[in-house]
This record gives sequence, C-alpha cells and structure tokens, in this order.
Amino acid sequence: MFTPEYLREFTIRVFEKMSCPTDDAITIADVFIRAELRNLPSHGMIRIKDYYQLWKTVRINTNPDIKVVHETPGTAVVDADGAIGMVGATRSMKIAIEKAKNTGTGWVATRNSNHLGIGSYYAMMALEHDMIGISMTNANPLVAPANSVSRLLGTNPITVAVPAGQQPAFIADFSTTPIARGKLAVAAKKGEKVPFGFVQDNEGNPSDDPDILTQGGAMLPLGGDLQHGSHKGYALGAIVDILSGVLPGANFGPFIPPNLAFMPMPEVQVGKGMGHFFGALRIDGFMKAEEFKERMDKWITTFRNAKPIKGKKVLIPGDLEREAEERIKKEGISVLPAIVEDLKEVAGKLGLEFKEA
Amino acid sequence: MFTPEYLREFTIRVFEKMSCPTDDAITIADVFIRAELRNLPSHGMIRIKDYYQLWKTVRINTNPDIKVVHETPGTAVVDADGAIGMVGATRSMKIAIEKAKNTGTGWVATRNSNHLGIGSYYAMMALEHDMIGISMTNANPLVAPANSVSRLLGTNPITVAVPAGQQPAFIADFSTTPIARGKLAVAAKKGEKVPFGFVQDNEGNPSDDPDILTQGGAMLPLGGDLQHGSHKGYALGAIVDILSGVLPGANFGPFIPPNLAFMPMPEVQVGKGMGHFFGALRIDGFMKAEEFKERMDKWITTFRNAKPIKGKKVLIPGDLEREAEERIKKEGISVLPAIVEDLKEVAGKLGLEFKEA
Repeated sequence: MFTPEYLREFTIRVFEKMSCPTDDAITIADVFIRAELRNLPSHGMIRIKDYYQLWKTVRINTNPDIKVVHETPGTAVVDADGAIGMVGATRSMKIAIEKAKNTGTGWVATRNSNHLGIGSYYAMMALEHDMIGISMTNANPLVAPANSVSRLLGTNPITVAVPAGQQPAFIADFSTTPIARGKLAVAAKKGEKVPFGFVQDNEGNPSDDPDILTQGGAMLPLGGDLQHGSHKGYALGAIVDILSGVLPGANFGPFIPPNLAFMPMPEVQVGKGMGHFFGALRIDGFMKAEEFKERMDKWITTFRNAKPIKGKKVLIPGDLEREAEERIKKEGISVLPAIVEDLKEVAGKLGLEFKEA
Repeated sequence: MFTPEYLREFTIRVFEKMSCPTDDAITIADVFIRAELRNLPSHGMIRIKDYYQLWKTVRINTNPDIKVVHETPGTAVVDADGAIGMVGATRSMKIAIEKAKNTGTGWVATRNSNHLGIGSYYAMMALEHDMIGISMTNANPLVAPANSVSRLLGTNPITVAVPAGQQPAFIADFSTTPIARGKLAVAAKKGEKVPFGFVQDNEGNPSDDPDILTQGGAMLPLGGDLQHGSHKGYALGAIVDILSGVLPGANFGPFIPPNLAFMPMPEVQVGKGMGHFFGALRIDGFMKAEEFKERMDKWITTFRNAKPIKGKKVLIPGDLEREAEERIKKEGISVLPAIVEDLKEVAGKLGLEFKEA
C-alpha cells in the first residue's frame, strides 16, 4: 500500500525530470492519483512507463505552447502542441468554464493532444462552479463499426458530471463499448474466455477470445450485436470521434496516432494528434442553481430508491467510484508488483528512487 | 399509397379543426410527413388519433402561449404551455439556432411540452445554417435502471445532425434502449418471441415475451444486461432525462405524464409536462465551415469504405432513412389499413373526410 501523497510526489518528480514545468507535473500527478483513488488503475500509475517511453521517442512535448487558435464568445479550439493529455485537457476545460461564465455555456475542442487519463477529472472541474461538465475524447482505433471488420473507432468515452445538493454529484463516465479494453487484457492474462458480444474475429464472427485483437479481430460497439443495437453504440462512438477529432482539426478514426511508443505512427495524418471535446453548462443559464440542485436530489433519491432486483443494488452513476475514493483514501493505494517494477525502472533511468511501501 | 401532399393537407386540416393556428398545424404536419418519408411510421400518421384523444381530454393545449422564461446569451428555458410537442420543439430549436449565431452555440431546455415525434426533424434544422444540431427528449417511463425492476426512464432518444460537403449529412437518431417500444408491440401482435436482452419480467429475470410490459415487466437500457454494459445505457438515458427533464423544470423519471389519453396522469408532478433539450453548434465557432465539411466528407467516406462483414453493408448513421426518403417520395406513403380506419374515424368526428387512396 502506498499513500496518495507518496505516489503524487513521486509522479511530480518523474514528470519534472522529463522537463515538464512543475505546474504541469502537478496536474498530471493529480489526474493519475485521482484515477487510483477512484479505483480506475488502468488510467493511473500503470501509464507512467508509457509516457516515459513516448517522451524518449519524442512523441510527446513536455514544454508545449498551448494556444487558442480560434474562438467565439462561447467556443474555442485549443492546439495542445503535442502536450501530455492531462495538460492540454485541464487547460481546455478551464477555458470552457470561463466561457460559460460569460455566455451560459462554453465548448472547447482540442487537437494535437494525447491520452488524457480519466475523463471524469475534467468534467468534475465544472461542479464547483455550479456547472454541468462534459468531457469526450477519441482514442486508438480498436472498435469496428456495425457490419464491418475494420477497426475504425476508439472506445471513445463520454463523461457527464452534474451537481446536486445534499446528494453527491451524478458522474457518468463510460466508454461507448460494452467493456473497456483493459478487461480484455486481464482476461487474456488469466487465460479466460470472455462472454460473446465483446469482440469479433477478423471476419466479423462472434468470438469469446479476449486475445482476438492480436489476430485481426475487433472490439464491438455498445449494444454488442446488431440485434441488440450495436448500430447505436457505433453512432455514439462516431459522435465522440466527430466532436473530438473532426471538429478541432485533430486526427480521427483510423488516423489517430497510437499512445504506445512501440506502435508505429500511421503513415497518413488527417489532422494534429489526438482530439478531445469539453463542455461546461452554467446551471443558472437555465434555472437557479439551488432549485436545480434540489431537483437533482429528488432525481437521485428517486432512482436510488428504485426497487432492486433481488440481491442487487440500484446505483447512481458515480456511486462506485465515490465509494472507492472514500475507502482508498483511508486504506491507501495498492500497486501491482509488475507496475512497481516498472516504476522502479523508470525512476532509475531518471535518477530518482521509487521506494516499495 | 398516398401522396405526401395529400396526407400533409389532411393533417393540417385535422389540427386546424382542433383549433391549432394554421402555422402550427403546418409544423405538426411537416414533422408527421417527414417521419413517414424517413420510414419511421411509428412517429407518423398513427399518432393523429392519440393527439385527437389528448385534445378531447384537454391534455394538450392547441393555442399555447410559448415563452422564454429564463435566458443568457447562449441558453434559454422555454415553457411550451402544454403545446403539441412539435410546436414547442420547433420554436425551441429556432431559438437555439439564433443564439448560436451570436455566441457560437445555443442551448434550449423545454418544459411543459408533449411527445415531439422524430427528433431528427429538429436536429436537422441546424444543417442549413452550417451548424451541428442536437435534440433529446424524455419519454414515458418504461425502462428499468440496471439492477432494478422499477420503470423509471423512457426510451429517451438522442439525435445529432452533422453537416458534410459532397456527402449527405451524418444523422444519428437513436433511443437509449436496444430497440424502440414499437418493435415490441409488433412482435406481440404477431405472437412472436423477442431475443433476450430487450425486456425483463417483474422480478428482473430475462424474458423473451414482447408483451411483458403489460405484466409489470420493463424494457432494458442499451447494452441489454449488466455484463454487456446496460449500466452505460442506463447512464445515457439518465443524462437525457436530466438535461430534458430536471434542467428545464419539466417532469422527469416516473413523474412524466403519459402521452396516451387512456393512461391516467401521475398523482405527483415534479415539474411541468414533458421536457426536451436542444443544441446548435456553429461550425465556424471551431473552424471554417468549408474545411470542416471536407473533413466530414473524409470521415464519411473512410467509414463507408470500411471492409464489410461478408454479405453486409457498412452504413453511415442516417443512410437508411435518407434512402427511404428518396424512395418513398417517389413511390408514395403506405398507411396500414387499421390506421386508415383511425384516420377516417377522427376525420368523421371533426367533420372532415379521409379518402382512401
């Protein structure tokens, strides 16, 4: 077990050594630690080695000149100049919030960025301003459109954070696929099969092999198969790709550069880097914030008090992550031995030390 | 077969007889005919009898005083004063478009409204202004949250319309459930079973009975079961309900008034009528419209040229409805005999005539 403080300090030092300004290193560390606390370790400390390797191969820019390249009172396009995802994303969401203060809502599309970690971090930035926050990003193409065998979409997650009053905020944070890619990797390592409806083989046949992506297979969109609405999951992933990729002038679809240093860059680029899309809606652009929050409390308690299926519990989006955060803050963060080894290795190369807990 | 012109004229006369101003009657007829042309007859002529009955029971207001009750430069809440859905929705989307002209985007949440027909009609209004159009609505509660047996959400559809250049526009229009409710009704009438993953019984067990809703069962959110991500479909439907219902001061969740006259009004109301949410994003708030449209053409052709599963065709959202529209415009609109009888009945009661084709 590690304390959040230890991992945060270590992460700050790592990114400072990669010549990030201290403020940026702090931002990156905060997003990583938040992912660990919210029990989303696939977006936490495990990514440090990936970022180190991307830095070594000059695929990320640790001293970016992040700029607004186009704007109106309520919209902007941000060029993140190849920044580490968290840096450009945080800056972009701040701009969306500032614009919302003036015009009711603010919308920022970001290009020339990289993997941004957990989208909920950015959407939740809106909450303290009594705003609804929205975050989307495109991602490495692994998902086939309905009826296709081509991998053209990422898992393209959507996050929406809505403030409440007495109740904790509503935080929906989900990929537009039945499962996250990490779950396939875990099943493959354990030698387990996965349920049908997650992946297909290279001819589009249903498959239960979690390792099928290495054999030309693809992930399926939310819905799983066409009968169960995979064309809707495809449409949803496509909307994220259009807003995050087409709109800001980033890459989209199969042109998105991979965020792993060992994967080659695509030969053709249709824009700059990876793309994101952020929104902030001021509650009092619609009604008094206090009234809205009372209404959200009513919504949340109505749904939380829904009759459960026997033996189950009805949850509000965000409940699990919030409960994890409370628990892990007390108990500490558990880091898998293989990741500890990676962190030691990166630390050694950067002249730092990573101490086992 | 009927010509679109005949059905449009008839529909205008029907709503004029229900004392709608002619402009409103034209709007309503245009949305109905568009639904028929786009091969979405469940939202077309079949609804005329429902609206007639809602009018007879004074559950809709055919002379509404539609007002903006709150606004900022980029946002507004519209009170539709109990209007027929199409009337308040069209007015609301126009306001969103006007606001987008000034601030880059416009967002309108609408309360005190009713069933609005096809959401694509409103989202597509943005296209001619070189804007992305968004439309959402909450709906009669038939869908159970993940892990619950309570029917708390509607099929809560989302529509996003994105302009392109040489290619036809991208029009995603989908409910946040595996299937629309109409498909259950059709299967039930035919005495057929439905695949598992669409509905559950009153204890939350998987069911293949399309008539299960009449026995306390519920529809399932997109994803179907928890393993395949029904918590994501639940989150998506919840987002639509919050933006469409909580935000404008409309009803939400189980409090939504039914749009069928024979169903009693809920005893408790938490707001006014049904709610919608509309958005318009000016493309040139982000980049030059011409450049964006070229990029959308590239996106569309990339996805349309994806390798299909053998014997299948890869579609762009909106392809099927656009192809239907071209065909039905030529061939005419087919109306089921039972609906023809309904239309004759309504016509008779209003002192009109509906002529068989």
